[in-house]
Amino acid sequence: MKHSEVQAPETMLQQVKLTCGLLKRVQDTNRTNTLPIEYEQLRDTGRLESLKLGWKPGDPNRPHHFWDSDEAKWLEAVGYSLANYSDPELEALADAVIDDLADVQQEDGYLNTYYTVVEPGKRWSNTRIMHELYCAGHLIEGAVAYYQGTGKRKFLDVMCRYADYIATVFGHGEGQIPSYPGHEEIELALVKLYRATGEEKYLDLAEYFVDERGRQPHYWDVERAALGETDTPRWGGSEYFQAHAPIVEQTDIEGHSVRATYLMSGVTDVALLQDDAELAEASKRLWHSMVDRRMYVTGGIGSSANGERFTSDYDLPNDTAYAETCAAIGAVFWARRMLDLDPRGEYADVMERCLYNAVLPGVSLDGKDFFYANMLDVNKAVWDAKRPEECHDSEQPQRQPWFGCACCPPNVARLAASLNMYVYSRRGSTVYCNLYTPSEAEFRFEGGSVRLLQETDYPWDERIHLTVAEVSGSPTVALRIPGWCRKPALSINGENIKVSAVLANGYALLTREWVAGDLIELTLPMPVERLYARPEVWMDNGCTAIQRGPILYCLEAADNGEGLHALVLPEGSALSASYDADLLGGVALITGKGWRKTAPGNGTLYAPGAPNRQPVELTFVPYYAWGNRAPGSMLVWVHTC
Amino acid sequence: MKHSEVQAPETMLQQVKLTCGLLKRVQDTNRTNTLPIEYEQLRDTGRLESLKLGWKPGDPNRPHHFWDSDEAKWLEAVGYSLANYSDPELEALADAVIDDLADVQQEDGYLNTYYTVVEPGKRWSNTRIMHELYCAGHLIEGAVAYYQGTGKRKFLDVMCRYADYIATVFGHGEGQIPSYPGHEEIELALVKLYRATGEEKYLDLAEYFVDERGRQPHYWDVERAALGETDTPRWGGSEYFQAHAPIVEQTDIEGHSVRATYLMSGVTDVALLQDDAELAEASKRLWHSMVDRRMYVTGGIGSSANGERFTSDYDLPNDTAYAETCAAIGAVFWARRMLDLDPRGEYADVMERCLYNAVLPGVSLDGKDFFYANMLDVNKAVWDAKRPEECHDSEQPQRQPWFGCACCPPNVARLAASLNMYVYSRRGSTVYCNLYTPSEAEFRFEGGSVRLLQETDYPWDERIHLTVAEVSGSPTVALRIPGWCRKPALSINGENIKVSAVLANGYALLTREWVAGDLIELTLPMPVERLYARPEVWMDNGCTAIQRGPILYCLEAADNGEGLHALVLPEGSALSASYDADLLGGVALITGKGWRKTAPGNGTLYAPGAPNRQPVELTFVPYYAWGNRAPGSMLVWVHTC
Repeated sequence: MKHSEVQAPETMLQQVKLTCGLLKRVQDTNRTNTLPIEYEQLRDTGRLESLKLGWKPGDPNRPHHFWDSDEAKWLEAVGYSLANYSDPELEALADAVIDDLADVQQEDGYLNTYYTVVEPGKRWSNTRIMHELYCAGHLIEGAVAYYQGTGKRKFLDVMCRYADYIATVFGHGEGQIPSYPGHEEIELALVKLYRATGEEKYLDLAEYFVDERGRQPHYWDVERAALGETDTPRWGGSEYFQAHAPIVEQTDIEGHSVRATYLMSGVTDVALLQDDAELAEASKRLWHSMVDRRMYVTGGIGSSANGERFTSDYDLPNDTAYAETCAAIGAVFWARRMLDLDPRGEYADVMERCLYNAVLPGVSLDGKDFFYANMLDVNKAVWDAKRPEECHDSEQPQRQPWFGCACCPPNVARLAASLNMYVYSRRGSTVYCNLYTPSEAEFRFEGGSVRLLQETDYPWDERIHLTVAEVSGSPTVALRIPGWCRKPALSINGENIKVSAVLANGYALLTREWVAGDLIELTLPMPVERLYARPEVWMDNGCTAIQRGPILYCLEAADNGEGLHALVLPEGSALSASYDADLLGGVALITGKGWRKTAPGNGTLYAPGAPNRQPVELTFVPYYAWGNRAPGSMLVWVHTC
Repeated sequence: MKHSEVQAPETMLQQVKLTCGLLKRVQDTNRTNTLPIEYEQLRDTGRLESLKLGWKPGDPNRPHHFWDSDEAKWLEAVGYSLANYSDPELEALADAVIDDLADVQQEDGYLNTYYTVVEPGKRWSNTRIMHELYCAGHLIEGAVAYYQGTGKRKFLDVMCRYADYIATVFGHGEGQIPSYPGHEEIELALVKLYRATGEEKYLDLAEYFVDERGRQPHYWDVERAALGETDTPRWGGSEYFQAHAPIVEQTDIEGHSVRATYLMSGVTDVALLQDDAELAEASKRLWHSMVDRRMYVTGGIGSSANGERFTSDYDLPNDTAYAETCAAIGAVFWARRMLDLDPRGEYADVMERCLYNAVLPGVSLDGKDFFYANMLDVNKAVWDAKRPEECHDSEQPQRQPWFGCACCPPNVARLAASLNMYVYSRRGSTVYCNLYTPSEAEFRFEGGSVRLLQETDYPWDERIHLTVAEVSGSPTVALRIPGWCRKPALSINGENIKVSAVLANGYALLTREWVAGDLIELTLPMPVERLYARPEVWMDNGCTAIQRGPILYCLEAADNGEGLHALVLPEGSALSASYDADLLGGVALITGKGWRKTAPGNGTLYAPGAPNRQPVELTFVPYYAWGNRAPGSMLVWVHTC
């Protein structure tokens, strides 16, 4: 299979339309509530004003060195949104921001607000710490999305000029800087730019950044010496930046988790497009390091707030979980690219897990507030007792309207606006259905085309109806059979098909002479499951997590009262699910009988007798929907016995 | 009962002699190993040199503002040690330090190294943050101990002059500073000075410091304004310093835990000596706040490293437990004073728990290394993955030879050298036996005297033999019946006595016409007990802690392999104790059958099936003895089911 047969996800934006259901509601809320609010935040915090280049030393609102990326991600989100939903007012706001951005561009193509007004003359002097290439990457992604969503070329042309200039700056040629970004992002962006423009030089530059990373002699040593830096770098040095070794030699996913997933998304892109077996192998190796040993049951990654980073295998504390929303988004990006590299259902399983249980929790149901860190265990009593200096705006037990470091909110927005790209993937005439959600999709391939209508109440209901509405040629329809599903059932036009007979790498591959109107019925039974962590994940020992279908559940004080750690779900207790259309935007609740431990009345802190047990009804809600009622405790891993 | 009938603990130093057993061994090791090593540390770190006052700006080893307290605590320890064990070489070293200290004293009596050479002219300018009165307190304690241990008055006279001067500086008189120490300590020291000299003015000054604390108008506001400080104080302001309200109005034990226990020791002293019912009530109220809601099962207190402080009720994390060794020592000080205020066995229960399980763990069996923080859950894998900036010398999974802030090592030394003072207490003709340990003791009271020989293998064996070796008058011998003991048995000269018939406030009160040679036999059965925390202590839910007699146990990797959280001790599993003279200096081990959870072989991080269980033999060792073999994991709260 050649990479040219893989359809770029960006091109599916308009070919797949969400029609209703949970993901459509997320996308709608993003459009109606999140995008306008984020524009206001960008404006009110001085970010938009910074593009006027009027800032002078002594003025307030000194532009931060990665503010450009905030505007860029918002523009990217607007571009995606406009691809499906016309909104002249929003488009006018975005056009004005793009006009200002264009004016920031220097004669030679350089475009960076911070280095233009705050530290003029110092561009590229600190590629390790400062975020010029990171901001460039986000601006490129924004430009590509805006072009794809609106057909307008202005932003794209600006960024091509900038990318052309960057290509002259970096490399091993005479007078070039043999460096690469401290915060990865531009790699995957250059691939998108290559795909949008067909210009191979952008792919070459992406490949250079990927290949040069971590090689000796290490340019950053030269750079640090030139900056007079002699201190020991924080966070363990170059592992933090995934630059401790060439990527093809790295064995574990390390360092800042957002950087790691952005980098690996670009690496996987390059592996596919350059047919690079070593990079493909590295992608898979580091993927398994992440998924098999360093991922929360939510799909969250990067367990430590210190460096927003991966720590060590199985180190996944729940109450101090960082699990940054951006990192989960990065994991979704990477998973989508792994599917293009090698269409295996296991990548889509992780993509789905991350999407529902690590990205969606990052935004409130009304689209107006955000989690940066996503804890799995919030104890209100502990939080109430914290001192102000112990609380960072990024680590809060309640969603916040914005952050000093505002990476997450516009990141959520761009993913929500582009969910269309994640539902399907395509290789040649095989259309892979990765996510089940009501939608219409149309694909063209060599020798034919197919239009698919998907109807389902997934993730709440097990039944999926996929109608082949129009068809020509002989497409293969590949239906993902989720790893969590034990007894999938399948029929076409009422005729049962044995799933095991058509299953390959996690997909049921359906090939036949399709006729318009063919109805595929897929049933993915979703009993309530108790999950257990490997014993090495010591924080979860003695506990169970509740999942139904792709949705992870939690206990919330709103339903169960405070003191969630005193609740026990015994092994044998039956759990049942019921859909409640009026709660939390419509969710399936899970209920079952459990116990609440109570202390004997004598007030002793420690006593020889086990605590008393009082029978209680336990109510679990989807983890993504927690924190949308009165502030209170929440718990994913519940004691069992 | 009048306070004049209470015998000051300091006066028991020479009246009680430890003869053998665990506590004697601790005291011996302290004398032979700890005291010499600590002298070398004081010397090698520049502390002793600082007393020469030769430091000038630009020199290395700038004297720290509480270095004086390190020498002071070491001198105090030496004083106690010399009371029982002659050591001319050690005494000569101490005399030389005292000579230097005497030379630091200024004409007016002031004595502080830091303010003499580092910030001359600024004395008493920052009573809230700087530690002048704290250092003075430790120096006074040192002087009293050295006087009591050696009979030498030089240090005592120096400190009387300093105390006299301090009494002129502080108060509400014309030109006086209406302040009190930010770090309490001098209160209890002034009480000791009063008792050693009979000078009431020292007691009055202690009472002033106790009474003034937290009153409005708050002098610290004036002081902070004079210093130009406008920032929000860290750690929540004056609660950190126990100065948020007058002591008699405080409801919960708050703030820095060492300060809190030192303060409350002084408060309890003043309550007793001034017969102050309000202060006595406050002592009991804050004691219960500490013991009933804010104390680890070890007796450790102050759960947060951020401010080394108490946090909120039931907030007792195990893996990040601070539980500073000094704070546990402070709790022992306070408990001893509560016993004098009101002789109730519950105070001795806590004193014993803190001593064995929160103070003894602070020093290695060879007396050469120390814990500052005392965690209850050390996971080697987590520690191995930490970055250098995440590790502070005070929070380490292995004992350290010294610390930048070196409060704990000499604090351990002074308590170990003075254990004699904790075994008994006396009110009039009632002699309370608080700790069971082989010892000889002699008490005089109005109308008589008594000499008691105690023979026992406690805490490993349940049998205690107390011989009334000499007696005149009619003493009451009060034997503590520990709260953990369910079925105590008692006899005199072989004749059984029903404990419940003589039990009052946790002591069996034995009054009779004693005859020399009378033998009291006390049996305190110590089956292995499983302890459970109140459900509010959420970190301990689903877990049990193992205790036998006064000794708390833990699992160590040395006996059980790594991965201690994967071990389970089922409810029904029998546990048995056996003494091993060759292990860890001689300890009772506890063993029983348990399980090790193992993951299924498929490598999945989370799976629907509960982990497999493999039967294993679990071995528990005393918590105080952990960390004396190869570095590895340790766990107090073990999973149960």
